[in-house]
Amino acid sequence: MHRIAVIGASGYTGAELLRLLVQHPDVELVCVTSRQYAGQPVDGIFPSLRSLVDLNFEDLDSGGLAGRVDLVFTAVPHQTAMNMVPELLDAGCRVVDLSADFRLRDVATYEAWYQAHTSPDLLSEVIYGLPELFREHIPVARLVANPGCYPTSIALALTPLLEEKLIDPATIIVDSKSGTSGAGRSAKLDTIFCEVNEGFKAYGLPRHRHTPEIEQTLSVVSGEAVTISFTPHLLPLNRGILSTCYASLEGPATLDELHGHYLNRYSAETFVRILPKGQLPNISQVTGSNFCDIGLAVDDRTGRVIAVAVIDNLVKGAAGQALQNMNLMLGLPEQTGLMVAPGFP
Amino acid sequence: MHRIAVIGASGYTGAELLRLLVQHPDVELVCVTSRQYAGQPVDGIFPSLRSLVDLNFEDLDSGGLAGRVDLVFTAVPHQTAMNMVPELLDAGCRVVDLSADFRLRDVATYEAWYQAHTSPDLLSEVIYGLPELFREHIPVARLVANPGCYPTSIALALTPLLEEKLIDPATIIVDSKSGTSGAGRSAKLDTIFCEVNEGFKAYGLPRHRHTPEIEQTLSVVSGEAVTISFTPHLLPLNRGILSTCYASLEGPATLDELHGHYLNRYSAETFVRILPKGQLPNISQVTGSNFCDIGLAVDDRTGRVIAVAVIDNLVKGAAGQALQNMNLMLGLPEQTGLMVAPGFP
Amino acid sequence: MHRIAVIGASGYTGAELLRLLVQHPDVELVCVTSRQYAGQPVDGIFPSLRSLVDLNFEDLDSGGLAGRVDLVFTAVPHQTAMNMVPELLDAGCRVVDLSADFRLRDVATYEAWYQAHTSPDLLSEVIYGLPELFREHIPVARLVANPGCYPTSIALALTPLLEEKLIDPATIIVDSKSGTSGAGRSAKLDTIFCEVNEGFKAYGLPRHRHTPEIEQTLSVVSGEAVTISFTPHLLPLNRGILSTCYASLEGPATLDELHGHYLNRYSAETFVRILPKGQLPNISQVTGSNFCDIGLAVDDRTGRVIAVAVIDNLVKGAAGQALQNMNLMLGLPEQTGLMVAPGFP
Amino acid sequence: MHRIAVIGASGYTGAELLRLLVQHPDVELVCVTSRQYAGQPVDGIFPSLRSLVDLNFEDLDSGGLAGRVDLVFTAVPHQTAMNMVPELLDAGCRVVDLSADFRLRDVATYEAWYQAHTSPDLLSEVIYGLPELFREHIPVARLVANPGCYPTSIALALTPLLEEKLIDPATIIVDSKSGTSGAGRSAKLDTIFCEVNEGFKAYGLPRHRHTPEIEQTLSVVSGEAVTISFTPHLLPLNRGILSTCYASLEGPATLDELHGHYLNRYSAETFVRILPKGQLPNISQVTGSNFCDIGLAVDDRTGRVIAVAVIDNLVKGAAGQALQNMNLMLGLPEQTGLMVAPGFP
Repeated sequence: MHRIAVIGASGYTGAELLRLLVQHPDVELVCVTSRQYAGQPVDGIFPSLRSLVDLNFEDLDSGGLAGRVDLVFTAVPHQTAMNMVPELLDAGCRVVDLSADFRLRDVATYEAWYQAHTSPDLLSEVIYGLPELFREHIPVARLVANPGCYPTSIALALTPLLEEKLIDPATIIVDSKSGTSGAGRSAKLDTIFCEVNEGFKAYGLPRHRHTPEIEQTLSVVSGEAVTISFTPHLLPLNRGILSTCYASLEGPATLDELHGHYLNRYSAETFVRILPKGQLPNISQVTGSNFCDIGLAVDDRTGRVIAVAVIDNLVKGAAGQALQNMNLMLGLPEQTGLMVAPGFP
Repeated sequence: MHRIAVIGASGYTGAELLRLLVQHPDVELVCVTSRQYAGQPVDGIFPSLRSLVDLNFEDLDSGGLAGRVDLVFTAVPHQTAMNMVPELLDAGCRVVDLSADFRLRDVATYEAWYQAHTSPDLLSEVIYGLPELFREHIPVARLVANPGCYPTSIALALTPLLEEKLIDPATIIVDSKSGTSGAGRSAKLDTIFCEVNEGFKAYGLPRHRHTPEIEQTLSVVSGEAVTISFTPHLLPLNRGILSTCYASLEGPATLDELHGHYLNRYSAETFVRILPKGQLPNISQVTGSNFCDIGLAVDDRTGRVIAVAVIDNLVKGAAGQALQNMNLMLGLPEQTGLMVAPGFP
Repeated sequence: MHRIAVIGASGYTGAELLRLLVQHPDVELVCVTSRQYAGQPVDGIFPSLRSLVDLNFEDLDSGGLAGRVDLVFTAVPHQTAMNMVPELLDAGCRVVDLSADFRLRDVATYEAWYQAHTSPDLLSEVIYGLPELFREHIPVARLVANPGCYPTSIALALTPLLEEKLIDPATIIVDSKSGTSGAGRSAKLDTIFCEVNEGFKAYGLPRHRHTPEIEQTLSVVSGEAVTISFTPHLLPLNRGILSTCYASLEGPATLDELHGHYLNRYSAETFVRILPKGQLPNISQVTGSNFCDIGLAVDDRTGRVIAVAVIDNLVKGAAGQALQNMNLMLGLPEQTGLMVAPGFP
Repeated sequence: MHRIAVIGASGYTGAELLRLLVQHPDVELVCVTSRQYAGQPVDGIFPSLRSLVDLNFEDLDSGGLAGRVDLVFTAVPHQTAMNMVPELLDAGCRVVDLSADFRLRDVATYEAWYQAHTSPDLLSEVIYGLPELFREHIPVARLVANPGCYPTSIALALTPLLEEKLIDPATIIVDSKSGTSGAGRSAKLDTIFCEVNEGFKAYGLPRHRHTPEIEQTLSVVSGEAVTISFTPHLLPLNRGILSTCYASLEGPATLDELHGHYLNRYSAETFVRILPKGQLPNISQVTGSNFCDIGLAVDDRTGRVIAVAVIDNLVKGAAGQALQNMNLMLGLPEQTGLMVAPGFP
């Protein structure tokens, strides 16, 4: 049994890591931390985990993990993570970091969209943990940066088109919609129930912080610098992201051909499901699972392709993908503990 | 008191017409029809209207309205409307038709997207009832085609940009999201609660029937033929549409300048509210009202403008706009009975 | 025009007062206060009110209202209200207080369920503003205590049974369910969207603070001291309360007879709608309106009657009833500005 | 591997059986039937099951199962089940029936609440499959009647009180609330999204068909004939039941004592979680899982106890409990495949 710790487990991503870890056959959850809830039982804060997690939250200076755990998930805010991760690595732990701090390769870009980076030296070592694109580097990584939720959905939706040079990258527009768990578990006026329910809005325009992460991946995949328009919206539901991705085709292409490329590209991928031609995905068909479902349409009138991808932002967009990375790092079959069937309805 | 009838009042649009008409000081609701519910009291089907509407549904052959009513709202499906409207006009009634049958000026376009048209001769007479764009023709109209819900939000969002030639029409992409009342009040598996709740999906791709109506208006406004990409999505909430409209700017333009154009264009319009710079609208801020709220963003990185508009699909997108047209046709102040404050939360 | 102020308008009840006041033909909103938002435009905090309310929030020491306003709504928390109301009365304002501070006639009861009372002398003067039960005293009142939301629904549901001595008061059990706007507009972890959505819970057991208010009214109506079991629950929706009230019949009674009593009792009441026999009310049929809808069932197997009442907690349960009281105090027809049709769906 | 069939898998209960069966390590799903969808791939109807279920729906005359399967779940409507089950038993299959047809031991009671029974002879053999109460009979059963959703929550909530004679059974009132998946997956006007969303209602008063099933179990447990008041309500959420159960205490009892009885009674039960004193359960803490969570309160003012239980109506209230019965029938550990962690949020 591999020994696992979750640092910063008081949020929705942390809780989802716990939910998935207790159902994983080959790991043991040995430590769960939260500054806010230190000393309290985990199931006092998350009653859903009663009789599943029998631990108290610890308030850990990270040095205390040395020798106790093999792999650590850091589910803390950006800026906190960059200070904590070096110590964890020094303590001999391997780390999957779920914050934004190690996702951008270029420190200048990071500092332009966030703030000063205190561990820039680690950026050359870190692996961006999107297994469907960068699997080969993950097994030996000491530090994996777990991708953001929006970026995961968009990278998987557009990769087959970019790899095959089928679209003009300069025309990419992504209109994304996320459930409210993406806003985190903290008391803010604009996420209380009545402010969100029966409402819908765009936010973060025109410079949402996930933009450079999305562009970095699309640039790697396409082999050229890509700049996109990205608009996130807030959905009145708990879980899920749907990204509607528009781009102009470089030349004539039928839905048949494009669909074939997608089937081909992801034929070996357990967690990417390409829908039959003519079908478009619904967020509810992936809820609770690690799947990314993708549907396609071609608009002959405008020469554009529309790729629509859905994920559960807490699973494939966060905790599930983190376990997928963990499995690869620990030499376990990639699907272990992750074949959770979606909970529709 | 002007005498009013609502034909086909068993759906959500019909019910909304009743809700607004009973609060209107200068009209009297004298006839409400429904084939399905003929003979039953209106408040038996819509308990919300108990003590507000004291009528039974009638099953009317439309000839029976001659002499009883001055103006008729037809809230019936397309194809039914085109057969019914000529008789109503012959009976001396003025008509606001809420179906799609008289919205497209070009019969060939109509027949390409719908089916054969049985009253093509009326297309030269009908007025497209979007008052903020075509107000001058409405007061004397015998027949007004009430715009679709998506088209209303999109036309109001893009008109200032197109009138001023600020964007390249060929680059317009519209990503719209609608509440579920837009799918109508009928028992269909894909709109039952558990199929919609906690879900979100795109639909109708790549050829939703509102597309030619949207393009017709944008073409009139811009003075050239406009072809757009339009993707509707289904939101898990009752009321409201949010349209996110993307286009490439023809030249450099600041948010200040664009915002000024919007303020200017709509300065005399009661029902269009331009948000302060930096604010984006939420569907919940117009629920139950006839307002269309618009916010703007400029993305310097890509040279695109993003205009976001919200309406209540049942009010400004249907029944409210129909009353606005009625007011104009009857010579009443345009706001009469329509200053209903949004019901947030 | 009567001049009106709303003290503490930053919450949902305050916002609802504004929504209703701007649609009222005979009053003028002259002052809106909020400590938190002092100096900011009202429509900056509540975008729904853009172009309807053209005021800034003030931070008022209440003395400043002398001579400016005729009637004041205090929509502040309990304990704040008891300190503020005496000064408002001294300044010559009449007051409708929406807090709990003046609802209980007995200061000892108040202090047992809340805290020390600083204005106990006013308790002999205050009128409990439930017009359907205590209308005669309201027109001349200086100070009206606006009833709580749960108590309003329960008092209206049970009064006909208690007045006619048809049930045993000792057997009353009330199971109530409220929408989340009842929890107020403040950032608390347990009302953020994901904590409420797709959830449902009882709370406040076994001593919710509305209990003594409910018992006080039922005792007055029945002429004997009544003690009840009352369990509130939190519904994942914005607006509305449904109270399911159980009691054992004192003797055999048919649904016909009981239904007749209800029709009779409320025959002159605009805002109480008794449903036809066999129908039970849905919260959605009163949303946004000042109606209380009541349905009845008799369970012959157990000898119990079940009365089910629905209201919109923000309207008949708060702001709407407050305007109803205002109308009575100002000598206006009781329905003025309150015939807002419910917004279904 | 035990071979399993699901008869009538086109509804939500059927889909939930599939979701749980594909995650169960010791059974193989070999046959899935649906008259309506015969010949179509399962994942065409339930896209959530893509890549998890690779079967087509069959239209099976039940004889066709002989020799193919060991155990059958019948998830068909009542009246259909009673005709189908005898043939399945004759074909050598063991059966877990999820309909109401075999839950009532007394054929006269069944026929008073439903219709004529065509297989009354089986009623003496069938085992009522609520393992926490009747576990000992299940392993050898040929036919298990899987309990209803409401009855499961109520029986588990009240059993410790009735077994210990702590309450007066004549005073039991149960106020239950269910998510909308309980209404089934069929196109009915009153379950379309806008009719349910932002609404809440009681229904089925005063004689919901689950009443005799509830009374049968409570009578067995208490050793005397129990008659209750039972009121179900419809919640605007997908999954979950919360039952608030009221009863008068037979004598003085503290919360401490009652809580101790519950802990004791269920100390060996994996799927019943007794909350700490002072905590009340939320539906969202069991969603997707087979847990039943129970909280308690004692109202000293009225001498009543209130027990509140929550379950997921599709899991512990249907498919999960069916698998629990299956595990017992097949000699597998009762928890096998059922330790699915709740999906909060």
